[in-house]
Amino acid sequence: MNEQIILKSRPKGKPELKDFEFQEFEEKNSQDLVLETKYISVDPYLRGRMRDEKSYIEPFKVGEPLESMVVAEVTDSKIEDFKKGDHVIGMLDWKKKQHHSGKDLRKIDPNMAPASAYLGVLGLTGLTAYLALDKIGKLKKGETLLVSGAAGAVGSVVGQIGKIKGCRVVGIAGSDEKIEHIQKKFGFDAGINYKTTKNMKDAIKKTCPDGVNVYFDNVGGEILDAALQNINKAARIINCGAISIYNETEVPTGPRPEGILIKKSALMQGFLVRDHMEDYQKAISDLAGWLKSGDLKYDETIVEGFDKTPQAFIDIFDGKNLGKMVVKV
Amino acid sequence: MNEQIILKSRPKGKPELKDFEFQEFEEKNSQDLVLETKYISVDPYLRGRMRDEKSYIEPFKVGEPLESMVVAEVTDSKIEDFKKGDHVIGMLDWKKKQHHSGKDLRKIDPNMAPASAYLGVLGLTGLTAYLALDKIGKLKKGETLLVSGAAGAVGSVVGQIGKIKGCRVVGIAGSDEKIEHIQKKFGFDAGINYKTTKNMKDAIKKTCPDGVNVYFDNVGGEILDAALQNINKAARIINCGAISIYNETEVPTGPRPEGILIKKSALMQGFLVRDHMEDYQKAISDLAGWLKSGDLKYDETIVEGFDKTPQAFIDIFDGKNLGKMVVKV
Repeated sequence: MNEQIILKSRPKGKPELKDFEFQEFEEKNSQDLVLETKYISVDPYLRGRMRDEKSYIEPFKVGEPLESMVVAEVTDSKIEDFKKGDHVIGMLDWKKKQHHSGKDLRKIDPNMAPASAYLGVLGLTGLTAYLALDKIGKLKKGETLLVSGAAGAVGSVVGQIGKIKGCRVVGIAGSDEKIEHIQKKFGFDAGINYKTTKNMKDAIKKTCPDGVNVYFDNVGGEILDAALQNINKAARIINCGAISIYNETEVPTGPRPEGILIKKSALMQGFLVRDHMEDYQKAISDLAGWLKSGDLKYDETIVEGFDKTPQAFIDIFDGKNLGKMVVKV
Repeated sequence: MNEQIILKSRPKGKPELKDFEFQEFEEKNSQDLVLETKYISVDPYLRGRMRDEKSYIEPFKVGEPLESMVVAEVTDSKIEDFKKGDHVIGMLDWKKKQHHSGKDLRKIDPNMAPASAYLGVLGLTGLTAYLALDKIGKLKKGETLLVSGAAGAVGSVVGQIGKIKGCRVVGIAGSDEKIEHIQKKFGFDAGINYKTTKNMKDAIKKTCPDGVNVYFDNVGGEILDAALQNINKAARIINCGAISIYNETEVPTGPRPEGILIKKSALMQGFLVRDHMEDYQKAISDLAGWLKSGDLKYDETIVEGFDKTPQAFIDIFDGKNLGKMVVKV
């Protein structure tokens, strides 16, 4: 029997194990490809799809299997482009095995980088870091780049690209270990542990003495407020994620930003990597080059076992991952 | 004796007459130019300079004369570039007469357009409308442009440029008369009276059935919130003014925008016309061309009398002006 994970109920606030259900099922459709799931990506943005509201991507349906980016191995194929043993990446169901048409699947080369890396540094998280900085950040040498979620999959790549571009890079993360880690492993110039810092505004001021030119925001909320109070003229704020408000059940409120944006001629811009598919190839090629040269390093937290997928997803919201969170099936 | 208007006290909340003082004084400095004030521009942004805080422009000092854009006539000159009878525009003190070095003054031609127009449609307000749309709005034919403060000096020019560019243009203003006026005189497609509208979100939805591509915000606050709830993918929000929060004494709060910005890959960007001086000439030339062709019309509210200047400034916050508010001395 095959096994799948469905959305049992829409989470209220933080997702809980009871919102998920494991089901045994028999595949009834037969399609050209049969895939065996190898790695499942669990990402904060999936929380948004668990709400029953229109967004840039369809919401999950209660009672239906969840999906995310998955690396799978082809175990049977009637399509010329894919053969048995190929590794593919795509938006796939949380099933141990699945049939698939092959549409929107991409072949990957597990010899160039570990298969799991295609879910992270060479996948959507690496692309997000690269393309958001390219399209909105427009870093100039000598500028100061502030990054929240700095030890995360996106944030750690953001910081390293900042160093490659010759910027001062300051990271915000949730433990002293993470702060030490981003400085030692990824070359951040300074870090702020937001959990032990009372006054974030002052802490940013201290670590960014020349002010903030680019703030790469993965968290939203009060850390964004504090960053806004430290921006320079013509600053760029990249709204890439807002994990601090994803689990809010009421409309989150905070200080209005429009006054500061006007005063500083600054910009805040939402970024979705899917808007920039035409630039993926160039980005992956640069990222792969930096991986090869050693300028770009990455972390991943690999949780083993298909049955651990919901807990791995929940753990992201408690910051239990270091870098990209991936489930090995 | 000469006369000047000083900032007597920093306003708390809305400015009041007691915050201003008229003083007779004798000019002690002698400089190369002697100017006689003809028209004084009163603008919402001056409220910001009355606070004791660093901004893009120095705050006013208590006990010192106020200043704004002024049209003056040269009554005496020791400089070759200016001669008696010339009209000039520049950032000048609120004085009936003043001596000046000539630095940063610009000659205007009162035969091409009325002198007061250089404080409005051909001055910073017209330039603001033109350049903010050019730099941030990037209007495309067929898009929907929403404008707040639509009957104001900036808003009315914004709307007309929107029509010139082939957009659907919807204006928000504070009375039925203003709404009728922007449709009849400036060609807006629809309007919303925010004072009599209970649900701004729904009203915007109704008047912008295809969603909002560009929102030109002169007011901030709750109208901005309502606009954000109606934006399309890749919308551009121009934060040009925030008159609704300028008089707040506490940090104004509201729904956090970061979630919507991410969902819609949208942009909010503060705009200061002074950042774009290199583009003034091209902009004035286009605006003057549209004035000539009749595509661009403007309103001005001219208040007569130097002694009416503080009240004219206060009246802006009650929306008593139609178009640019100017004091004729």
